[in-house]
Amino acid sequence: GTADEEEDAASIEDPWQDEEYYGSYGTLKLHLEMLSDRSRTETYRRVILSNSASLRNKVVMDLGCGTGIISMFCAQLAKPSAVYAVEASSMADYTGQLVKQNGCEDVVTVMKGRAEELELPQQVDVLVSEWMGNCLLFEFMVESVLVARDRWLKDGGVLWPSSAALTLVPCQASSYYAEKMSFWERPYGLDFTPLQPLAQQEFFNKPKFSHIIDPDDCLSAPCDVINMDMYALQVNDLEEMKGEFHFSMEKSGLFHGFTAWFSVHFESLETGGATVELNTGPNSEPTHWKQTLFMLDEPVSVFSGDSIAGTIALRRNPVWRRHMTVTLQWNINGQTEAADSSQVGRKSFPMWR
Amino acid sequence: GTADEEEDAASIEDPWQDEEYYGSYGTLKLHLEMLSDRSRTETYRRVILSNSASLRNKVVMDLGCGTGIISMFCAQLAKPSAVYAVEASSMADYTGQLVKQNGCEDVVTVMKGRAEELELPQQVDVLVSEWMGNCLLFEFMVESVLVARDRWLKDGGVLWPSSAALTLVPCQASSYYAEKMSFWERPYGLDFTPLQPLAQQEFFNKPKFSHIIDPDDCLSAPCDVINMDMYALQVNDLEEMKGEFHFSMEKSGLFHGFTAWFSVHFESLETGGATVELNTGPNSEPTHWKQTLFMLDEPVSVFSGDSIAGTIALRRNPVWRRHMTVTLQWNINGQTEAADSSQVGRKSFPMWR
Ligand SMILES: [Ca+2]
Ligand SMILES: [Ca+2]
Repeated sequence: GTADEEEDAASIEDPWQDEEYYGSYGTLKLHLEMLSDRSRTETYRRVILSNSASLRNKVVMDLGCGTGIISMFCAQLAKPSAVYAVEASSMADYTGQLVKQNGCEDVVTVMKGRAEELELPQQVDVLVSEWMGNCLLFEFMVESVLVARDRWLKDGGVLWPSSAALTLVPCQASSYYAEKMSFWERPYGLDFTPLQPLAQQEFFNKPKFSHIIDPDDCLSAPCDVINMDMYALQVNDLEEMKGEFHFSMEKSGLFHGFTAWFSVHFESLETGGATVELNTGPNSEPTHWKQTLFMLDEPVSVFSGDSIAGTIALRRNPVWRRHMTVTLQWNINGQTEAADSSQVGRKSFPMWR
Repeated sequence: GTADEEEDAASIEDPWQDEEYYGSYGTLKLHLEMLSDRSRTETYRRVILSNSASLRNKVVMDLGCGTGIISMFCAQLAKPSAVYAVEASSMADYTGQLVKQNGCEDVVTVMKGRAEELELPQQVDVLVSEWMGNCLLFEFMVESVLVARDRWLKDGGVLWPSSAALTLVPCQASSYYAEKMSFWERPYGLDFTPLQPLAQQEFFNKPKFSHIIDPDDCLSAPCDVINMDMYALQVNDLEEMKGEFHFSMEKSGLFHGFTAWFSVHFESLETGGATVELNTGPNSEPTHWKQTLFMLDEPVSVFSGDSIAGTIALRRNPVWRRHMTVTLQWNINGQTEAADSSQVGRKSFPMWR
């Protein structure tokens, strides 16, 4: 839509889409998906367990606690003095029951409400949250974490995760390309190529969430393009996050697009203690986030030793605050547009507006 | 919602949800899914091919033609005098291009519009359509076929499909039950059973579309519960379609629910010619419809030789005309409620309202 249309829409709808956003977390579907993600949930459990001694008598906030599982890990595996389990969706009504059922009610206090309107009896030593979305930032729950950090985290308090990175790799996606694009070439002996421009628009102009990339389809080693220090990050920084990449092809193949994923890191409460990592990439156990695929309009042949360099920008939608547009710009072997147009490109992918 | 709420909603919304319904067929996603379904598409191709001699000089209507593939099969595999390819969604704008691209424009005329408002230059000998939805009737496109039949099919003309059946089988669904219900028993060493009533409501009170049943999970031979003669069927019949079943268990196991699927049959244009069948059941090649699973609230143990008897009713929503409620009523070994409440049951499943 045009900017005018967006302003009109925003004036009658909620640009945070809170009803839709919190509504979806009021049903079990998403919570089951997250809890069934063993890689995700066990990582948070491991963070609590490996810091259990240091958590003794600490005050913890679990922001966007959902069913309260992280808070209950805290109560059962460590001896914090208090855990504030904060949840804005109607799941909070059940979280209290679960806390009681598991005998955690002396330690865990469930608080229903938004982080932005939160009132706590005291500041906290540890702020833990699972705020990550597709391509790390999607849905921008991270903003709530930053707001809670600034209001409720003690000086010297700890954030879990403590840092986050977005990782990118140029890749092949032959079967996805075949399924959505080559399909139209000769289905049942007919020529359906007039639909290919429509297919390109419909299937390749937005990222493909829930892609699972085979490590063999990575054309080079991946590259961290954005690094976020959760202590230094400011809400305003989220408006535009930029990064650069320089990949060196390790094999010849078809460059169909870029695949992105994220990792987050949990520092130890003890000086020198081991950092715990949750990595959602192709060499780790699959998570419910899977990976995110950004398709080029057309594949380009690349050869072992070729370089692909460029930039990525994540621009938050100025109206729809949970959405963003990812813009990728790249060249192969340092070519400029003038030389060979297949060797340079720029493409913007709304997620979702 | 209550009846009052539904009336309110209907007065401000379109109870046929045409914008949503035709809108979804204006994008490629659903058409790609249907075309990629080789079992479905090849069946229609086989029907045309096996009747190609008899189709010579016939007039054909292809209702809800989508990309026009059936019409183009007619033009390329037979010699009909005319094919009217009728499509209400905006896909019709592309269908004309595809018809030209494949050199079928002398035979195939694309007509954009709803079946109900259709004006044809002549009546037709054959009315072909792929109108089937989940559980056969969902979305009730069949009504458009009946309306077109009554207005445009010649006396003695042929309908493809000519008949349809809904098939049911009592089944196990252990992994689905484990994933959605047993999961809450002890995840990560915690007791999440307070969420089970919510899980039952959220996951088992509506049918599961896109279930794929393993033939080994069928507890007995399946049974056709509803048969539709496409010549005799009237629009009013669709308000309530009822059937009976009597299954004899061929193995012992857990009775988790019923699985439904459909088959349709295409009579030959030649007397005594072979009927072609499209069967979407577990013993046929999988289709994009897959099967539909209706879960009981709790599984019941059954034993080889046990009988499960009862009734099924598909009641069309009086307000939301593309929706229906499926009501299943059953007893095991002829028990009555008085004797043992686990041995009798009744459950209604909205699809979707
Ligand atoms: Ca999340
Ligand atoms: Ca259909």
